[in-house]
Amino acid sequence: MEYSIIKVGGAVVEDSGQLAILLDEFVKVQGPKVLVHGGGRTATQLAGQLGIESRMIGGRRITDSSMLRIVTMVYGGLVNKNIVAQLQARRNNALGLTGVDMNIVYAHRRPITPEGIDFGYVGDVDGADGLRLQQLLQAGVTPVIAPLTHDGAGNLLNINADTMAQTIAVAIASIPDLNAKVSLTFCFELPGVMRDADNPDSVISQINESDFKRLVAEGVISGGMKPKLENAFAALSAGVASVRITNIRNLNGGTLII
Amino acid sequence: MEYSIIKVGGAVVEDSGQLAILLDEFVKVQGPKVLVHGGGRTATQLAGQLGIESRMIGGRRITDSSMLRIVTMVYGGLVNKNIVAQLQARRNNALGLTGVDMNIVYAHRRPITPEGIDFGYVGDVDGADGLRLQQLLQAGVTPVIAPLTHDGAGNLLNINADTMAQTIAVAIASIPDLNAKVSLTFCFELPGVMRDADNPDSVISQINESDFKRLVAEGVISGGMKPKLENAFAALSAGVASVRITNIRNLNGGTLII
Repeated sequence: MEYSIIKVGGAVVEDSGQLAILLDEFVKVQGPKVLVHGGGRTATQLAGQLGIESRMIGGRRITDSSMLRIVTMVYGGLVNKNIVAQLQARRNNALGLTGVDMNIVYAHRRPITPEGIDFGYVGDVDGADGLRLQQLLQAGVTPVIAPLTHDGAGNLLNINADTMAQTIAVAIASIPDLNAKVSLTFCFELPGVMRDADNPDSVISQINESDFKRLVAEGVISGGMKPKLENAFAALSAGVASVRITNIRNLNGGTLII
Repeated sequence: MEYSIIKVGGAVVEDSGQLAILLDEFVKVQGPKVLVHGGGRTATQLAGQLGIESRMIGGRRITDSSMLRIVTMVYGGLVNKNIVAQLQARRNNALGLTGVDMNIVYAHRRPITPEGIDFGYVGDVDGADGLRLQQLLQAGVTPVIAPLTHDGAGNLLNINADTMAQTIAVAIASIPDLNAKVSLTFCFELPGVMRDADNPDSVISQINESDFKRLVAEGVISGGMKPKLENAFAALSAGVASVRITNIRNLNGGTLII
């Protein structure tokens, strides 16, 4: 038995054509599976329509109370429930969740950084309730998870979807006596980690930790790909059997992280 | 064992002070319980901020695709996840749902009326999966349900929260061999069904079906209260043990429908 945790980025879930392709592939994945999604572009767009400025630092969204309303509506409502409806139409018994629902993802509010940056209602993930997720999966339910959770004191928190997917994969892999492999797939618009972003044939088929250090030093891996790979290695070292970075048309291809 | 289905209207869930009072009372309710909520005022407000006109006919919102986005964000995201976070803070293991999640509420899109009115993405409820809800309740989970579901073909539908609460109460009451009573409480800003809306001492303590017909004829019951009472009698005739219409500070008071 293999448990598949698939994270899909904003550009895919926010384009109805790409989302349909992804969900067609997703429902074909055998065995228990979890979908984790983003939605940042729609959040930025809605914020703009409401006259709220989006500010990002290091790829993370500054989330004051106005922006928290936006991401709660977009991630927890609009994107999440539309994916669930599309999966139900494919006869997949999906359940939309955030980390606050049944308290499945634990987090704390990020403290003000040493540089004085206050990210607002942004959470750093501490863990997930793998057993509760496994019970849902065993009951034939497919969790579809939005990148929100809470601080336990009534405040919602905006969290990073890659980190959420990795934490969920690790939590399921850590269930005692599970006797199952857990795979984690980061699915986005490119065909994998590429040596040259302009050359679709330059996908790097495998990356280990020493390759990673070299590729970062060479400047091949930069920007948002660096934390994605750090999440991948964190998952592997915590018991996840395999991690891939690939696109929606090729869930078993792309770059294998080893 | 008593199962409590409590429906709370928009004016309560959209005021943080009133919501806090309601949730303090809600967590004190013994036994398995379900909260069904609205959120119409916030939807109207957000639509206005985005330049989208809200049109209501007979108390029901005309829901074109722009308005469906709004209610999906407000009901399924903003209102639902905030209630769940507030319940988790009170150590109640809440789970936010819409009818599309695990396909718990069945509906069909309302056809164009004989008068030629197209309500758009508005659903009429056909039933609910009482067994799935009971399984959640038995596992110690409190469902918090937003008035949205789907047509099975990938489209979300906006549905009436009172009807949803009634349907859920009936579905649980209809589980074979449940050996439990199901109570349904419609909780709103007034202390109950009132003979005179301006006189808080004029609450009618009990209403049966012949009282109802008389009160409608007398004009005491009108507007949104009429379908609320019709929902109440439908619930009683389908096996729900008791129905109340009351306010948040007095969940066991108000008007008992018999």
